Amino acid sequence: MKCDRPLKTIEWIGGVDGCVRMIDQTRLPGELVHVEIRDVEAMCEAIKTMRVRGAPAIGIAAAMGAVIGVQTARDSDAAAFRERFADVCDYLAASRPTAVNLFWALDRLRRVVDSLPGADVPALRRALLDEAKGIRDEDAAMCRAIGQAGAALITTGAGVLTHCNAGGLATAEYGTALAVCYAAHDAGREFRVYAGETRPLLQGSRLTAWELDQGGIDVTVICDSMAGVLMKQGKVDLVITGADRIAANGDVANKIGTYSVAVLARAHRIPFYVAAPSSTFDLSTPDGSCIPIEERAPDEIRRGFGPLTAPVDAKCYCPAFDVTPADLIRGIITENGIITPVCADAIAAMLIDDSA
Amino acid sequence: MKCDRPLKTIEWIGGVDGCVRMIDQTRLPGELVHVEIRDVEAMCEAIKTMRVRGAPAIGIAAAMGAVIGVQTARDSDAAAFRERFADVCDYLAASRPTAVNLFWALDRLRRVVDSLPGADVPALRRALLDEAKGIRDEDAAMCRAIGQAGAALITTGAGVLTHCNAGGLATAEYGTALAVCYAAHDAGREFRVYAGETRPLLQGSRLTAWELDQGGIDVTVICDSMAGVLMKQGKVDLVITGADRIAANGDVANKIGTYSVAVLARAHRIPFYVAAPSSTFDLSTPDGSCIPIEERAPDEIRRGFGPLTAPVDAKCYCPAFDVTPADLIRGIITENGIITPVCADAIAAMLIDDSA
Repeated sequence: MKCDRPLKTIEWIGGVDGCVRMIDQTRLPGELVHVEIRDVEAMCEAIKTMRVRGAPAIGIAAAMGAVIGVQTARDSDAAAFRERFADVCDYLAASRPTAVNLFWALDRLRRVVDSLPGADVPALRRALLDEAKGIRDEDAAMCRAIGQAGAALITTGAGVLTHCNAGGLATAEYGTALAVCYAAHDAGREFRVYAGETRPLLQGSRLTAWELDQGGIDVTVICDSMAGVLMKQGKVDLVITGADRIAANGDVANKIGTYSVAVLARAHRIPFYVAAPSSTFDLSTPDGSCIPIEERAPDEIRRGFGPLTAPVDAKCYCPAFDVTPADLIRGIITENGIITPVCADAIAAMLIDDSA
Repeated sequence: MKCDRPLKTIEWIGGVDGCVRMIDQTRLPGELVHVEIRDVEAMCEAIKTMRVRGAPAIGIAAAMGAVIGVQTARDSDAAAFRERFADVCDYLAASRPTAVNLFWALDRLRRVVDSLPGADVPALRRALLDEAKGIRDEDAAMCRAIGQAGAALITTGAGVLTHCNAGGLATAEYGTALAVCYAAHDAGREFRVYAGETRPLLQGSRLTAWELDQGGIDVTVICDSMAGVLMKQGKVDLVITGADRIAANGDVANKIGTYSVAVLARAHRIPFYVAAPSSTFDLSTPDGSCIPIEERAPDEIRRGFGPLTAPVDAKCYCPAFDVTPADLIRGIITENGIITPVCADAIAAMLIDDSA
């Protein structure tokens, strides 16, 4: 079976008393299963266990999770509602530390509540739902714009290496790095994508290979350790990855392994691009050294997929992300165009233009 | 439970009618299981499915497999014995293509048979068994000598990165890259080893982490994609890997991912060493481009951990080895000392000294 494109990664179903419907990404590629999320605890669990993952999708999930979290507040008491809302936001903010979109989305919701000081509970709930749905719809539009901005980078015959999943499954619909691939494909170009499998959780083989195949794009899975030899063989013409957070100077936090790929690309004179919406930039973070890096449980390495593949008490080092310094990045593909060279001034100029 | 060091990876049990006893490495780290091999088909299966793996251990396994393969030859007919022996060698030679030790060991046995033109079958069988056991004993001695040659490279407090398993499990006893670690440990130095897990078959997490822990050495498992960030953090002072074949110019074929690690080491100004006995050098191979690279089945990527972790029909690229060019290698640690700089003249000089 092939899915219709775009994927419906995460959607709101119904009105203010509705729920969230999302693809359970832990079940892919074996099964395409949708789950319905009806309370904030379930949303936190879904974010922590990566039923939903990818910085933009986590932002949407957090926003919709906050809307769900206040459904049980009593309609008559606006003050209690605001208190409940603040607690729900704090609770969701603690789910994962690195992706800035999560905090950004919750901040947008907080500003909505702050901007309606006299509103009653039903009005606040409607306003929050509108904002959450707006974040989703803007994300979908941004991803299409990112695709258009980057599509010309992929020419017919090209080999594109990507790492992790910066696809439709990481966003509302089209993705960031993969939006560029979809846009080039829609423009009639034929090319090949190599998907690094992305240990430990294999988002590349489980998710990227699955969604590109669904989308009719030629994709080959490699182990992460094969990126170097693939480049040496001349099979990779450019690298495009997503980002979880981009500092003011252009340093990019992304899935662990991205830094290695960027160094390898530089050594082989292959351009390395990052694709991300402006919501992934965090100007309050001056550079990559200030980005908190989540460490995951050792068992993600020791028992990545069920059976024990290391001694049961083996020490493991399991950072979920790494930081690629700006000077290894040829350009950052945003919904407003490509930032190149990657530096603080160019980033600030692009983001100011955007907010103007 | 801890095993005694050295590990008895592969041994001959009994006399000419005896059998091979080896650790079934596919069962590690969950269980320490020994298997007894009593026919040549079982030995071929054990090599192909990597119950025994690692270039030196494969050489020993092939030699002992040839001894087993001629046990059924009729004692009265020396000509039929020689024919049977030739067939057995051809059969074993087809088991895996990259590790030169396999062909080298079989050639040694062929020369024994050729050197005894008038011998009867019992004499030939005894001579072959002596040669096979000699290959094992020489390997054990070579590994100890490699350890001594390289031990001074590891100082107290150092971080050592290795990839795959070039340990006791890859040889008769002590290993090559890990022999250097064992020798430094025996010299009283305290240091930390990082073991790249080595997708797709995870020899690093399954075997290296297990045997270093058995040997009392501090070991931490990482995903292969984490090597770059570990280097950037200053945690790696040197890299030591094994080799499956070394060409005349010093290009090294080793486990897939070694090339990426070598490029990353160069980018971070970290010395990259290879440890291997002289039997791993193949002067008839002028450079790395002439080394045949085995491709493994896509399911080693798609179902590497048992469950399906990629779409069932996903294309995969699965080379088992890659080639690291000599100019990325600081030195090759052999039983005769360290070859540095790595070049054809220095290699030829070392090997000629050795055979003199």
